[in-house]
Amino acid sequence: MATTTKQTPILDRITEPMDLKNMTIGEMETAAQEIRELVMNKVSKVGGHFGPNLGVVEMTLAFHYVFESPVDKIVWDVSHQSYPHKILTGRKAGFEEGSFDSVTGYTNPNESPHDYFNVGHTSTSVSLAVGLAKARDLKNEKGNVVAVIGDGSLSGGLAYEGFNNGADLDSNLIVVVNDNDMSIDKNYGGIYRNLAELRASNGEAANNLFKAFGFDYLYVEDGNDMETMIAAFEKVKDSDHPIVLHVHTEKGHGYQKATEEKMRYHWRTPFDLASGEAPAGQPGESYNGILMDYLIEKVDNEDAPIVAINAAIPGMFGLSQFQERHPHRYVDVGIAEAHSVTFASALSAGGARPVVFHSSTFLQRAYDQLTHDLALNENPAVIVIGGGTITKNAATHQGLFDIPLLSSIPNIKYLAPTSAEELVAMMDWALTQKEGPVAVRLSAHGVIHRPTETIDYAKPTFEQLIEGSKVAILALGGFIGLGGSVQEALAAKDINATLINPRFITNYDEEMLENLKANHDLVITLEDGSIEGGFGEKIARYYGGSNMKVLNFGAHKEFTDNVSTADLYERYHLTPELIVEDILKTLA
Amino acid sequence: MATTTKQTPILDRITEPMDLKNMTIGEMETAAQEIRELVMNKVSKVGGHFGPNLGVVEMTLAFHYVFESPVDKIVWDVSHQSYPHKILTGRKAGFEEGSFDSVTGYTNPNESPHDYFNVGHTSTSVSLAVGLAKARDLKNEKGNVVAVIGDGSLSGGLAYEGFNNGADLDSNLIVVVNDNDMSIDKNYGGIYRNLAELRASNGEAANNLFKAFGFDYLYVEDGNDMETMIAAFEKVKDSDHPIVLHVHTEKGHGYQKATEEKMRYHWRTPFDLASGEAPAGQPGESYNGILMDYLIEKVDNEDAPIVAINAAIPGMFGLSQFQERHPHRYVDVGIAEAHSVTFASALSAGGARPVVFHSSTFLQRAYDQLTHDLALNENPAVIVIGGGTITKNAATHQGLFDIPLLSSIPNIKYLAPTSAEELVAMMDWALTQKEGPVAVRLSAHGVIHRPTETIDYAKPTFEQLIEGSKVAILALGGFIGLGGSVQEALAAKDINATLINPRFITNYDEEMLENLKANHDLVITLEDGSIEGGFGEKIARYYGGSNMKVLNFGAHKEFTDNVSTADLYERYHLTPELIVEDILKTLA
Repeated sequence: MATTTKQTPILDRITEPMDLKNMTIGEMETAAQEIRELVMNKVSKVGGHFGPNLGVVEMTLAFHYVFESPVDKIVWDVSHQSYPHKILTGRKAGFEEGSFDSVTGYTNPNESPHDYFNVGHTSTSVSLAVGLAKARDLKNEKGNVVAVIGDGSLSGGLAYEGFNNGADLDSNLIVVVNDNDMSIDKNYGGIYRNLAELRASNGEAANNLFKAFGFDYLYVEDGNDMETMIAAFEKVKDSDHPIVLHVHTEKGHGYQKATEEKMRYHWRTPFDLASGEAPAGQPGESYNGILMDYLIEKVDNEDAPIVAINAAIPGMFGLSQFQERHPHRYVDVGIAEAHSVTFASALSAGGARPVVFHSSTFLQRAYDQLTHDLALNENPAVIVIGGGTITKNAATHQGLFDIPLLSSIPNIKYLAPTSAEELVAMMDWALTQKEGPVAVRLSAHGVIHRPTETIDYAKPTFEQLIEGSKVAILALGGFIGLGGSVQEALAAKDINATLINPRFITNYDEEMLENLKANHDLVITLEDGSIEGGFGEKIARYYGGSNMKVLNFGAHKEFTDNVSTADLYERYHLTPELIVEDILKTLA
Repeated sequence: MATTTKQTPILDRITEPMDLKNMTIGEMETAAQEIRELVMNKVSKVGGHFGPNLGVVEMTLAFHYVFESPVDKIVWDVSHQSYPHKILTGRKAGFEEGSFDSVTGYTNPNESPHDYFNVGHTSTSVSLAVGLAKARDLKNEKGNVVAVIGDGSLSGGLAYEGFNNGADLDSNLIVVVNDNDMSIDKNYGGIYRNLAELRASNGEAANNLFKAFGFDYLYVEDGNDMETMIAAFEKVKDSDHPIVLHVHTEKGHGYQKATEEKMRYHWRTPFDLASGEAPAGQPGESYNGILMDYLIEKVDNEDAPIVAINAAIPGMFGLSQFQERHPHRYVDVGIAEAHSVTFASALSAGGARPVVFHSSTFLQRAYDQLTHDLALNENPAVIVIGGGTITKNAATHQGLFDIPLLSSIPNIKYLAPTSAEELVAMMDWALTQKEGPVAVRLSAHGVIHRPTETIDYAKPTFEQLIEGSKVAILALGGFIGLGGSVQEALAAKDINATLINPRFITNYDEEMLENLKANHDLVITLEDGSIEGGFGEKIARYYGGSNMKVLNFGAHKEFTDNVSTADLYERYHLTPELIVEDILKTLA
């Protein structure tokens, strides 16, 4: 593997897909090898999706050999496997030293006419393809529409809404099911038994999920063989009806370690290609680690009816620890965020204590379930939310909207611990109270230790850390450190500001807010997320009829794409200096 | 039909399900007839779900005959078909004259130990049942868990997330697919061909959706036959693995008109049982009607690439008019709100002009699709939102959260027309602009006619209707009338307030807000929805650092269940008198 190609790279001859048309199979195979080298080199240097891209190299080459992109359109589900597609559509430079940053990690219409959508969440490709196909038909245009969806993404319900509606099309629609028998982690659920039967029977099994949804069906066993893939695409090209091409590929194909440890190589930070090892980090303390230790101990010692649930992202929270110790109390529902919440609501109604782990960006996929299935029913499930923070991130994966989202839902308490001890105290309460759902937002900043008062979180009470006057700083969760710095910077200007840990994101302590009126002129709020619809605006509304001034700090309502955290902090005035400047201007 | 039972009603002997245990089939059939009479009488008097309840009478009786509720649990999808269940579980009074209000239209744990969830949105029952089953297993308890899901609800993706996960249970789970070959309207999509094949083959068709998901399967052709249903339930009772019981029933069974016009009789306002006719109303003008006329004409005259999309609620918007005239430009996606938005995003990317019609309460089901699939991609789809208003409604169907929900999403413009002319002007702009998605909130109040300026809605500009001083009233959309009344009431107190039509819900006119500072002390905002995370809070934040006072009026963040609109207006201070009182207090 990764042997150096001595001749002029064949990829130098490919600046757009049509350059593939006259190539021989041998040349295509060389191109595949070169693409793998570029992907492996880039990801090993700067991180990114590894296994998914290595698995679809032949599929991608065959697609562009057989079809005429962009008249024929390919929609990549999640689009974390679109690196080979990018290389073949004029974006090779993004995989070469010195210009890695010139392409993003997902499809992006601003980058290329061969991309149609910004995509980073799963299970959307079938619906998107159905839309493109319907638009084509309405406008009497030509062209194939192809969706590529992985087996992991088939755990998300939106895919079936897409299949159900797609089956009604009386025209071309090709759905490639890229089946590598692997989600990010292992797959769970009934459909994976059907996919296994289909693979084992060369597509001939009696039960066939896709036929049941009304699609025609074709199976391809060796999706990493160039000639096979070309023949398969030629067979379905210009199909006049919806068809599923079920393709068996190998995740990580071409890099042995990635085929052996598929989860580890799904997405990687920089690592050594020869050994597969990453530079030893200082893992140190993390809120995830503290939470796992806490939950494991809780079940060990109290046989608490806790069930840890997640939607295919156990690695984000270190849940494997918990799974190993308590396998019967661990459920990975697949990439089915909506189900995870509805399921948890019923689990708690049935007397268990579900703790659902979600990433801020994916929590969005369960809004109605949080509202209608959970909050309205006041079931005491606990939701732990990670990744809610203003940071350099892809536009598709912003963790900025969990506060506005949960803030608008009645009956959910959303708590923001500021220290390890407070996290434990809040979990202790959340797991024993019976009044309703509780969400806990993990700080994305360093672990802080500070003794915490045991309080009854049923009643929203803010914690006053420093009693001052004139200015009060409400610093939410992970921004408690920023709040402290602002307090210090104000002290240097002879303002002894009050510093408050609000603890509660979606409820407020009216008594404390009322008392602040006595000797404060200004309240500022600091929140690590999007400001519109968030915590701060509630405080602004609360004081709206009074003389108290209020300034809210947080992210603007916008999608940003890989902008550095420092630039974002500058733009949003999230440094102590800029905050103090704004405060002084307002007090003047 | 609806013949009067001369003897003592057999239902008088049933105060809980165990009272059924020793009944003969003949007595059960009499009970079925009495249940139908109660349901028909109540719905014809006060409105409610009709066809769905008549279809499941035998199923419900058979369930309670065979199983031991509440140790054995039944979860009704949507629960709009739970009237017979309510009658058999001690709530017959709710279907008798004089005490109709004593039960709600959906299952409700506060009403009965035989109900487990408040449910009103579709496709949740399988996930809920999986949760109850898992909790039972964890706690080593006994009992069957049964979900009842209609064929219409099978168009929602959450159902498949539930099936996929449910199939992994190594214990009892029974999913009754109540197949009456009908959603609210006609069914659309590939799975309905599979259901038809299964019905036609007595469950023996080669393709079987449920087996493909990993469930065992049993078909019942005559779901309205008591003995058949009892035998079927006895067969699956205590199953040690997940099984689907596919039951063919007739929607509206027992009332001929309801079996002939299934959509009309899905849900009805009061009507005459003998003739089926409702008292002639004054339909008069409605914003829906104006919008339909506009869209039809648009396509007629301009061949605009408009596609009208909805998720199984064409009746709410009068879409049948549009469908009849332009069938190829009409898509009912089934109860698949998530797909509707992703599909629309792709349609607009492909050059069509989708107009998606959603009810405020169901829009919640597409939050991530609105954010990630639509807004991030800045595709110029149009979303029309109806039913967003503070009114007497079931807790499951509150139309209060669309403003907070859309307000937090970047790149979507949400417009609030205050008149028929403004609605048309906004649609004209929305359907021709190319910058991104636009949502339009239909007023739930009477149609107003008022000349409107043609403006470029790309730039948020508020409209000043009355120029005054001291107090400025920002009255959003349907609350423009309330704003006018407040203006008049203030005039009577010698305050000549400024009245503003903000037009924009999620963006604000900074220039006008800034100018108000010159001669106003107080800005009030009026919005017909939940206040937290809404329009008013943005205004409060905007003025937070200034001397301008701000009062926000709207619904509190809470779920209310069938509380009268008058009581809600009183509670939320939404009458001119109460608003003026609050204004005077703040100015004092």
